[in-house]
Amino acid sequence: MIRIKEGYCRLEHRYLFQEVARRVAAFHEASPETDIIRMGIGDVTLPIAPAIIRAMHEAVDDLSVQERFHGYGPEHGYGWLREAVVQGDYASRGITVDPEEVFISDGAKSDLGNILDLFSEENTVGIIDPVYPVYVDTNVIDGRRIKFIPCTEDDGFTGEIPDEKLDIVYLCYPNNPTGAVISRAKLEGWVDYALRNGSLILYDSAYEAFIQDPDIPHSIYEIEGARQCAMEFRSFSKTAGFTGIRCGYTVIPKELRGRNRNGDDVSFNALWERRQGCKFNGASYVSQRGAYAVYSPDGREQTRESIRYYLDNAAVIREGLKRAGLHSSGGENAPYVWARTPGGMDDWEFFDVLLKKAGIVITPGSGFGKAGRGYFRLTSFSDKARTIEAMDRLYNCINEL
Amino acid sequence: MIRIKEGYCRLEHRYLFQEVARRVAAFHEASPETDIIRMGIGDVTLPIAPAIIRAMHEAVDDLSVQERFHGYGPEHGYGWLREAVVQGDYASRGITVDPEEVFISDGAKSDLGNILDLFSEENTVGIIDPVYPVYVDTNVIDGRRIKFIPCTEDDGFTGEIPDEKLDIVYLCYPNNPTGAVISRAKLEGWVDYALRNGSLILYDSAYEAFIQDPDIPHSIYEIEGARQCAMEFRSFSKTAGFTGIRCGYTVIPKELRGRNRNGDDVSFNALWERRQGCKFNGASYVSQRGAYAVYSPDGREQTRESIRYYLDNAAVIREGLKRAGLHSSGGENAPYVWARTPGGMDDWEFFDVLLKKAGIVITPGSGFGKAGRGYFRLTSFSDKARTIEAMDRLYNCINEL
Repeated sequence: MIRIKEGYCRLEHRYLFQEVARRVAAFHEASPETDIIRMGIGDVTLPIAPAIIRAMHEAVDDLSVQERFHGYGPEHGYGWLREAVVQGDYASRGITVDPEEVFISDGAKSDLGNILDLFSEENTVGIIDPVYPVYVDTNVIDGRRIKFIPCTEDDGFTGEIPDEKLDIVYLCYPNNPTGAVISRAKLEGWVDYALRNGSLILYDSAYEAFIQDPDIPHSIYEIEGARQCAMEFRSFSKTAGFTGIRCGYTVIPKELRGRNRNGDDVSFNALWERRQGCKFNGASYVSQRGAYAVYSPDGREQTRESIRYYLDNAAVIREGLKRAGLHSSGGENAPYVWARTPGGMDDWEFFDVLLKKAGIVITPGSGFGKAGRGYFRLTSFSDKARTIEAMDRLYNCINEL
Repeated sequence: MIRIKEGYCRLEHRYLFQEVARRVAAFHEASPETDIIRMGIGDVTLPIAPAIIRAMHEAVDDLSVQERFHGYGPEHGYGWLREAVVQGDYASRGITVDPEEVFISDGAKSDLGNILDLFSEENTVGIIDPVYPVYVDTNVIDGRRIKFIPCTEDDGFTGEIPDEKLDIVYLCYPNNPTGAVISRAKLEGWVDYALRNGSLILYDSAYEAFIQDPDIPHSIYEIEGARQCAMEFRSFSKTAGFTGIRCGYTVIPKELRGRNRNGDDVSFNALWERRQGCKFNGASYVSQRGAYAVYSPDGREQTRESIRYYLDNAAVIREGLKRAGLHSSGGENAPYVWARTPGGMDDWEFFDVLLKKAGIVITPGSGFGKAGRGYFRLTSFSDKARTIEAMDRLYNCINEL
């Protein structure tokens, strides 16, 4: 019988959202009459903007006629989309990125997992805690040593920069799950750390479009020196509702280098090009045409409206938590609100209480790491009326505790 | 500076098709007036069938309204598509496959690369030669020991089953590049080999839809015992022209097991579910709806017509090669025709001759492995008139050699 990669045996048995789904399903079976409101899910709910829909219909029509048929596209994405990303997301903020540094893919989750293909298993990894569980699991599979960097209310959930040298550091801002953002000064501190230690920062800015505060950096490349030490991961999922359409991109500056056993310098841009050339065949043409429309004037205006809608929901959540006497943060530059459980209750216990007594699904904080214990995450991706109703139920439930 | 995965430094510098593209571009620059006919490319050219186009438009419309909006889908594909695959590709041939054994993805190339995530680097690998270069490159990156299994005219390009125990064996039938198919008896031999040695067969049947001969197996699961020793990789790319739409699937029977260092049995079906749950977020909803339409009566009829068209081109190619006095095989149950160069000429040399003297692009056989030396591949994916023209040019060119 053939040998498996050992790391899989070290994984936790259940993925957070699978456990949530299991408990919700069990409750639904026991109480089928309860109208459940899902405030835990990270998926968008608003339909795709008309400008994007139009572009996708046109793309489908292209495929229907020989003269405009598109087969295999460039593995790293069509030039027009790479260029639109550069202009729309970087040049417009005064950041220099070359289109050849932008790799279009089927989403940030794929890229964040697959990027580990480039790194030796000897590299040590620093992961802020609490955080999106995928960073941890993918490194456990590979067997890398992980050092958690606890993030607390005191540091605004941006962690204390470690003394210890770590080879790879994951940062995610606006953060999932805390909804925290990182100040320019703090991000400068992380870039400085990486440059001093020869570390690589994997910067996940999937929620960038939610940033409202003009002082908060949208990209790590706003920080001097970041091109020498950081890759950036972006997604159209939360910016434009592409969770089901699948498109994202990763920026790998040409300056970014690793070394092999012989001490030779190797370009990560070239390595990723090779990896994707070997194991990927490009994102769907229809998805890429949709993503391109995100950068059109109509597309921009319409996607901005959706984000406004979700941020209004986040304001309802924050207000509701305050009324219920719960301490919360986030939700101002992010779709997520992070709150303390009442009276220090265990977060999985609170999950069960809210589900059974109020029919609300939240996400327990400890699912995102040890530092998430005693917290829970609410998301703004529901319908507004349902969000208001959920916060009323939460208020009543807590008053009855 | 951080350490890269060593395997990348052992890769050949250039991927076959990149080298072909480089030579073609250089020639085009030197002789811009030459009308080049590309007979080397593995990409389809016919537009997508109307039934599929209709389904994709409907899918885009779904995304435009809240009630039918689809966000994150199941990571392993929608149930309706998994079920359609089971019914359309397996049950219809009397093969038992459970929908939970079918994993929908963005394409067979991604799956064939990513599947290696499951296996220890200690496993030895057998790869038939000549073959699709991706099997080799992905294993070189991981550092696995590769044993090539040369395939020759004498064995119908199906290789001699080795005495040596190999942990993982790649088979691809109908074959890229030789266009060869494998008989039931020979495939039974491979399954028997795998069962005796505890090996795993990775069976790439991306070109299955081209099989015309009723005696040739379409799936490895037609062979008894294959559920205990084989994964099967399929794609809608060549079946229905999805090279730009991106959808494929992998079948992993629940019986299929590996073991970890402690000797525990582990289900590969469960491991792949975990891997994809960690590093993949499902194929595009629009692509999946398109793939679903492939199984509708209209979709089946229309995609069959496209395959007929390509096979007619293959007949033109076979006839043209015969007229030019070149020995060839394949093209009867596959889109590829495989031929010997004239007078034992080196295949890259013949590539240059045909490009410069006839303006035809072929694929040199040695790009697919050592056993491909002195051969070249022609594909049937061009337009019919262009295919006829290319064969006329080839005839004249060879007569003038």
